[in-house]
Amino acid sequence: MPIVSEQRVRYAETDQMNVVYYANYLVWFEIGRVELLRALGFDYKQMEDEYDCILPVVEASCRYRSPARYDDLVQIEADPTLLKNSVLKFAYRLSRKEADGSATLLAEGETVHVVCTHSMQRCPMPRQYEQAIRDAMQAAKLDRTEKQDETQEPTLQS
Amino acid sequence: MPIVSEQRVRYAETDQMNVVYYANYLVWFEIGRVELLRALGFDYKQMEDEYDCILPVVEASCRYRSPARYDDLVQIEADPTLLKNSVLKFAYRLSRKEADGSATLLAEGETVHVVCTHSMQRCPMPRQYEQAIRDAMQAAKLDRTEKQDETQEPTLQS
Amino acid sequence: MPIVSEQRVRYAETDQMNVVYYANYLVWFEIGRVELLRALGFDYKQMEDEYDCILPVVEASCRYRSPARYDDLVQIEADPTLLKNSVLKFAYRLSRKEADGSATLLAEGETVHVVCTHSMQRCPMPRQYEQAIRDAMQAAKLDRTEKQDETQEPTLQS
Amino acid sequence: MPIVSEQRVRYAETDQMNVVYYANYLVWFEIGRVELLRALGFDYKQMEDEYDCILPVVEASCRYRSPARYDDLVQIEADPTLLKNSVLKFAYRLSRKEADGSATLLAEGETVHVVCTHSMQRCPMPRQYEQAIRDAMQAAKLDRTEKQDETQEPTLQS
Repeated sequence: MPIVSEQRVRYAETDQMNVVYYANYLVWFEIGRVELLRALGFDYKQMEDEYDCILPVVEASCRYRSPARYDDLVQIEADPTLLKNSVLKFAYRLSRKEADGSATLLAEGETVHVVCTHSMQRCPMPRQYEQAIRDAMQAAKLDRTEKQDETQEPTLQS
Repeated sequence: MPIVSEQRVRYAETDQMNVVYYANYLVWFEIGRVELLRALGFDYKQMEDEYDCILPVVEASCRYRSPARYDDLVQIEADPTLLKNSVLKFAYRLSRKEADGSATLLAEGETVHVVCTHSMQRCPMPRQYEQAIRDAMQAAKLDRTEKQDETQEPTLQS
Repeated sequence: MPIVSEQRVRYAETDQMNVVYYANYLVWFEIGRVELLRALGFDYKQMEDEYDCILPVVEASCRYRSPARYDDLVQIEADPTLLKNSVLKFAYRLSRKEADGSATLLAEGETVHVVCTHSMQRCPMPRQYEQAIRDAMQAAKLDRTEKQDETQEPTLQS
Repeated sequence: MPIVSEQRVRYAETDQMNVVYYANYLVWFEIGRVELLRALGFDYKQMEDEYDCILPVVEASCRYRSPARYDDLVQIEADPTLLKNSVLKFAYRLSRKEADGSATLLAEGETVHVVCTHSMQRCPMPRQYEQAIRDAMQAAKLDRTEKQDETQEPTLQS
């Protein structure tokens, strides 16, 4: 099951187009990946402080599907999608929780990170964090497989 | 010749990694495209106010090459790369002006916009703005061709 | 009992001093007053949309007591302190929830607002909202009186 | 003569009230004081890097007089008003440059700073910076006196 964080849109995050300013979606991505890491049993702050290990972003992209507006409840889903040597990727899905319980897709995106020391030298990810990420990637794959099964089931019954 | 705006990195834009927070590069992209439009002879504000025409972003991406730091002078280059029906694309190049006059590439990126009314209905771009964008695209192409010529010249002479 | 909202410090909110950038405390004030209004039974968004009533800030101040840091859990307490004609004041108290359950005061502040229409003309606050604010001011006073009683009790017993 | 910096309002800085979000004025204050320091012959970045000296804010206040809007040219005036032991104060005046050359007052404010090491211990300001600040305070006073003279002159002539 993916880790989902929830954030309410702040007035500060809107712009005069009456929607959330486009750069702020990347802030939600950051919240999503930090909360994912926390759910995996470690905190990003500790990794920075105790292991001299930071995760600067080398690539980010976002596809905006529907505008987020002031006071919306935004649900942030983050998944690790790759960990190879010092390269780490995450995928994100932002959606709005509607009053009737349904969800509207707001945006999808990805970030690519390089595991580094504070002096910006590439380094391996500390072992226990690496294992947690791999477990989450495995779980995400299983989750997707299960979802596909559910989706396909009506087809199979016909 | 591409339009270049210049911005000094604000303290507010740094984070505890001692570099500019990754979402802020998208703010510089916005400054770059607005200043490009201004250099083409119209202002974005007027287009919003008088023509009921806004340019919400539907896609954004950024590749971070070298970290921008506090007090850096960032040069923002923006170019329109596509205008087709209601779809408008820009490419960006951010670099740091060094003390010795050289430039360090900080990031490259793209945004895709849909021309809309304030009520988020697709519409054509007002005619005079469309023409200005097309002229800029043409100029950018010529500029690239000239640059290639210069680059190839030493090769041709050898 | 004061309304308390909770926000975790985002990476985006830190600066290279390793603390939260000072302007961001005003964003927390905003969250505090919106959540206070919500707790009083109405939402700010609806007041803007349905009553053509906005609350622009005409004065803000903040006294920073202890720096907030990345990943801190910040508790935001907001209280209305004045509603007179079209002028509305709030007081704020930000504190960090420590691991041992204690709280560290981070900052205190105030904002002054003028009740306006979207075209920035002063107007009275819609009646039901005014009543809710007055009730909250009354409750805050009672709350303070109770707290003073508790504080004074040892003195009285001596 | 006061040091004046100029900033154009970014789309990112507006909110759905169609004005600049109130916390962003404090970012302009920061730009004003950094540019003031630069004009006095030293840069804040160097003071942080080479003298282990930072200037965290302990108090900030702002009175908003007229809303700043998208694309406005904002002029930022900053003056040091006190330097006593480790305490440093600045006053700010933000105004909009109008098309006819006149200026509209947008906001006024103050910040109070404590001179500190990176580990947040109070320390004296490095000598040469202290001297520059004192010179600027002296110049500001002279400037105000001159302005008063000009103002009073018509009265004297009558």
